[in-house]
Amino acid sequence: MSLLTVGSVAFDALETPFGKTDKIIGGAATYITLSASYFTDENNLVAVVGDDFPQSMINDLQQHGINTDGLEIRKGEKTFFWSGKYHNDMNTRDTVDVQLNVMENFDPIIPESYQGCTYLMLGNTAPAIQRTVIERMTTRPKLIVLDTMNLWIDIANADLMTLLPLVDVLVVNDEEARQLTKEYALVKAAAKIREMGPKTVIIKKGEHGALLFQDKLVFFAPALPLEEVFDPTGAGDTFAGGFIGYLAKTDDISFDNMKRAIIYGSAMASFCVEKFGTERIMNLSQDEIQARVSEFVKLSAFGLQ
Amino acid sequence: MSLLTVGSVAFDALETPFGKTDKIIGGAATYITLSASYFTDENNLVAVVGDDFPQSMINDLQQHGINTDGLEIRKGEKTFFWSGKYHNDMNTRDTVDVQLNVMENFDPIIPESYQGCTYLMLGNTAPAIQRTVIERMTTRPKLIVLDTMNLWIDIANADLMTLLPLVDVLVVNDEEARQLTKEYALVKAAAKIREMGPKTVIIKKGEHGALLFQDKLVFFAPALPLEEVFDPTGAGDTFAGGFIGYLAKTDDISFDNMKRAIIYGSAMASFCVEKFGTERIMNLSQDEIQARVSEFVKLSAFGLQ
Repeated sequence: MSLLTVGSVAFDALETPFGKTDKIIGGAATYITLSASYFTDENNLVAVVGDDFPQSMINDLQQHGINTDGLEIRKGEKTFFWSGKYHNDMNTRDTVDVQLNVMENFDPIIPESYQGCTYLMLGNTAPAIQRTVIERMTTRPKLIVLDTMNLWIDIANADLMTLLPLVDVLVVNDEEARQLTKEYALVKAAAKIREMGPKTVIIKKGEHGALLFQDKLVFFAPALPLEEVFDPTGAGDTFAGGFIGYLAKTDDISFDNMKRAIIYGSAMASFCVEKFGTERIMNLSQDEIQARVSEFVKLSAFGLQ
Repeated sequence: MSLLTVGSVAFDALETPFGKTDKIIGGAATYITLSASYFTDENNLVAVVGDDFPQSMINDLQQHGINTDGLEIRKGEKTFFWSGKYHNDMNTRDTVDVQLNVMENFDPIIPESYQGCTYLMLGNTAPAIQRTVIERMTTRPKLIVLDTMNLWIDIANADLMTLLPLVDVLVVNDEEARQLTKEYALVKAAAKIREMGPKTVIIKKGEHGALLFQDKLVFFAPALPLEEVFDPTGAGDTFAGGFIGYLAKTDDISFDNMKRAIIYGSAMASFCVEKFGTERIMNLSQDEIQARVSEFVKLSAFGLQ
């Protein structure tokens, strides 16, 4: 089934305890569509970049089967740029520099050929932009998944509150869930978020795995205990891309299939952190992905006698 | 099979965001033996208290089938006392007061009737005391499990290093594993600990579950996402008690059975935190425990298609 992803395509400059990069390709929609490309062939992107964005990178996306008809290239403008530095624990980071550039007035135009898509992934951008995307869909997708972040919970809370009833699944990390609900216990936070609109809530806990909540059901997916986390940038988006990509591939939004989708998302995220930026998720084989998923099965399987 | 537990039996005074207690019964060996009592009938305790320790509490332990022949009661001395206050996140706490009292020169006497025990659980005390226990066993137990803490890693590191080669399983939390090995990644920390002696390493991550490492095998057990953590005191010891109690009951130390033992330990810990101190684990039914274990199965089970 067809997937539409809307979000940022950007330049990142990263520094981790293991090294630093110059400007490399980044952005939520980049990670999401690359990750989803291993699952679905109908992988449509809406984003905006400046004319400083290299054609070679657009070619890379296209070679992954990503439809870039919705990638607007603004003449004379610059691509969104983010620069960050990770602390030694790799769980916290400082933003060194942000230049919004083209993202300052991102107006998401949905190409006619994208209309009728079954799955919609709203990568992290301003809630007002995410809402505009939903309003511009001529038919409502079967499943709308939303990502957001602490910045929007803070400065665009009212926008976010009117957006949440329009989506099916919210994907946030543990700190964002707590910030959004003022509840420390994640079970309570998930229940409050479900009252705000989305019937399904996924709470990412980074190295501690992810929780899926729906009605009275809870599922816990572990993260693989890794020897090295080289660069956590994009791990959450790669997770979301694997999740929605797997759902789009299987076209089954039951709770049981969402559990599998989370395992696939977690497997994709575990690759992402092994190298800088998108490097590791640019060239994966289906065999590698299946082998990684098998590791998740082994990691958490136990039988009662 | 018979279990011997050596550790502290103490008074605690606790303050959490939900309330505070006067002096209540606490101590690592108390939680361990109470938790193990739901699995094994041969549940032997070695500990020391002062004559301020109420007989009614000793009766409580005995009613749980705990053999208190090895509980030394020192005339004219006072029981070990610890007082702590938890922060709002429940993950961190301050020690308000510690009075070692009888623990200052705890000399663990092993009653003759305890000799030949199959499973030995060394609850958290000074490494030198833990070593003495091992030396006083006339036959080496089939499995020796050791708990320790940041204090001993800090002030008794040399003692701990000579002790580690003598034990089979080390149970520590994530921070202790990092402190012991100077490795942040838990996979690396576990590998380093295994080089220090214990073939099996369990790393407790509190609300984030627990990891079991042996050779190249890894198992991840989730923690139940709870609505309320009322009081985390003793959760780690209750986990250890469920773990070793289940092993003693089944007398099977294979990796697969250790996985089950960790699930049972996690289930016991999830009860412990629901009320102050030992209150919740004083009166559990086998049905309640089985129902809780079933929740763990549901929480982490997924099938690949």
